[in-house]
Amino acid sequence: MIKPLSYVKKIQPYIPGKPVKEVERELGIKECIKLASNENPVGPSPKVIEAIKDLISKPVELARYPEGSGYYLKNALCDLFAKKGITLTHDEIILGNGSNELIDIAVRTYIGPGDEAVMANPSFVVYAMSVISQGGVAKEVPLKNWRHNLEGMLNEVTDKTKIIFIANPNNPTGTINYKEEFDKFIKALPENILIIMDEAYYEYVTDPEYPDTLKYFKEDKDILILRTFSKAYGLASLRIGYGIAKKEIITEMNRIREPFNTNTIAQIAAESALKDEEHLKKVLEINEKGKDYLYKELDKISSIKYLPTQTNFIYIVLPENTTSKEVFDFLLKQGVIVRPVGPKQIRVTIGLPEENKSFIEAFKKFLGG
Amino acid sequence: MIKPLSYVKKIQPYIPGKPVKEVERELGIKECIKLASNENPVGPSPKVIEAIKDLISKPVELARYPEGSGYYLKNALCDLFAKKGITLTHDEIILGNGSNELIDIAVRTYIGPGDEAVMANPSFVVYAMSVISQGGVAKEVPLKNWRHNLEGMLNEVTDKTKIIFIANPNNPTGTINYKEEFDKFIKALPENILIIMDEAYYEYVTDPEYPDTLKYFKEDKDILILRTFSKAYGLASLRIGYGIAKKEIITEMNRIREPFNTNTIAQIAAESALKDEEHLKKVLEINEKGKDYLYKELDKISSIKYLPTQTNFIYIVLPENTTSKEVFDFLLKQGVIVRPVGPKQIRVTIGLPEENKSFIEAFKKFLGG
Repeated sequence: MIKPLSYVKKIQPYIPGKPVKEVERELGIKECIKLASNENPVGPSPKVIEAIKDLISKPVELARYPEGSGYYLKNALCDLFAKKGITLTHDEIILGNGSNELIDIAVRTYIGPGDEAVMANPSFVVYAMSVISQGGVAKEVPLKNWRHNLEGMLNEVTDKTKIIFIANPNNPTGTINYKEEFDKFIKALPENILIIMDEAYYEYVTDPEYPDTLKYFKEDKDILILRTFSKAYGLASLRIGYGIAKKEIITEMNRIREPFNTNTIAQIAAESALKDEEHLKKVLEINEKGKDYLYKELDKISSIKYLPTQTNFIYIVLPENTTSKEVFDFLLKQGVIVRPVGPKQIRVTIGLPEENKSFIEAFKKFLGG
Repeated sequence: MIKPLSYVKKIQPYIPGKPVKEVERELGIKECIKLASNENPVGPSPKVIEAIKDLISKPVELARYPEGSGYYLKNALCDLFAKKGITLTHDEIILGNGSNELIDIAVRTYIGPGDEAVMANPSFVVYAMSVISQGGVAKEVPLKNWRHNLEGMLNEVTDKTKIIFIANPNNPTGTINYKEEFDKFIKALPENILIIMDEAYYEYVTDPEYPDTLKYFKEDKDILILRTFSKAYGLASLRIGYGIAKKEIITEMNRIREPFNTNTIAQIAAESALKDEEHLKKVLEINEKGKDYLYKELDKISSIKYLPTQTNFIYIVLPENTTSKEVFDFLLKQGVIVRPVGPKQIRVTIGLPEENKSFIEAFKKFLGG
């Protein structure tokens, strides 16, 4: 039988779980509260729904290939950045089937067998998988005080290093690295290494010391800034994200990108989402209130520790005498799904007020039991 | 600056053209007739539209990640094949962001730097691009009498060959290879080579000598059969296709596949499309009638040659004294878009009756002018 590339075997295959609907049926639960995937509990702007309705009113449009250049969505992104005083051109933007795909495209553009990439651990698991799938070496540097250890990462750089991944805010910890340390990091980094700044949770950040990475882009650094419509814009189902980098980098990545990688509905949905600033504001307000409520309730539980977050999720370290699996199983039976992210760590998405309350009640029930 | 992998530079970057709407505006044309991308002129089943309406009636569903396993769509595919007497399991199916993505995933699973793949020329251009992007060698074998030269392709096989691509029907010629020659080809092919059978136009085929490749799958051959919802099912905008292969091959490809590679709307649209056999029948009937009309009209034009087709498009060889670029430009100004596929060859999608008529009138005007 045909054998895969030796390094492909090193990647854990994706084991598809049963859909939530099937789990609900088996457990006899009516409707689970999903706080496992950092999804936006409010949903997208009503303008998105209107735009989709408008598209499907002309069914033959669904039979047409997507607009391969993403022309109108790129226009909308240029407008968004222009409002912030940043001039962007179409050839400095790349659209992806989720920002996840852009990670893969960047890795396929720059990493070949034996090349190295540096990343934090724990951080978004896709970085290492993507690098390994290209025969590259993923050098993982443990977090320091729950944040990226930028100095430690610099120490891992060799002449084989092609990419450094930085999730800011980091997933699953919800922490950020700051302007000042970032300035130092960029100055110390040797040339010819691509920094991939994964800013999937960018819109949620409130800390004034959060670095404005567009600055490094404007300074012509080798940086690729990734953002997504899956989180604050509520479009995870549709798969759409974008990357910003200098033209030369986008041009190379476009050689790898499939021309029709982003679907039509995702493009028009994202374009419409950008035009509803009020909705985004509402989403962020609901998140802030949910965060305050969860902080207040978690503060009352002395046996656990949690990390203040710059995102829409909270990282919780469980008491010594329990495991994340036990918590996950117990909460699931109570109809609340969270994400185990370590042997004694769970990650909980900030939901709607009633969802947060259900989580706290079930969690207290577990800890008290 | 960071440099891409040496072989990435060999790939032609995708140069995004302007959207059709922008071209129309510039040329002062009301609405172009698009016969360039082999899109279904009828559009998808009304059941698809209903399913999308149903989904967006619960907007928060759009904020949820897709069902990563494709559970319900795989169920529907298993049902479809069961009706034809073929038992398929979920782990013998892989879903892609268009079957185009599945080509990339298969290549990334099996082709590393220096590995070889054999394919026809002209055929679907993505095969070679995908192989080159992995540092592989694309060995292209010219068509023979406008069809895949299977013997010639066998002659190109070496111990470095990992994949053989066969588009059946072939794009852009619309021709097929037959059962008997295929049986011979499979018998003669050395072991440990993956055959990728691209059957994007499968549903349109009427020739009884078309091979049933599920047979080879059931015989445990190293074969990956690719089909799509972009053509006969009219869902090109949504990006959804599927692959069938033995479990071991699908397992390896799933290591490379991103868990959320297919979007939610595409999954439910495809599932709904499979449940409307009447609509598919209607689409195929309209295609047959369009084909008959175009054959009849093209037969009257003695200066050109065309190939009988097993698809929804026709390959036309232009007269000696003209080029495909001239024809393309002339037709565009008449509001008809076709695809130049060689210096003297164009490919025309079979459209609705009035669209076919517009094409014939404009084409005659060009040839007579």
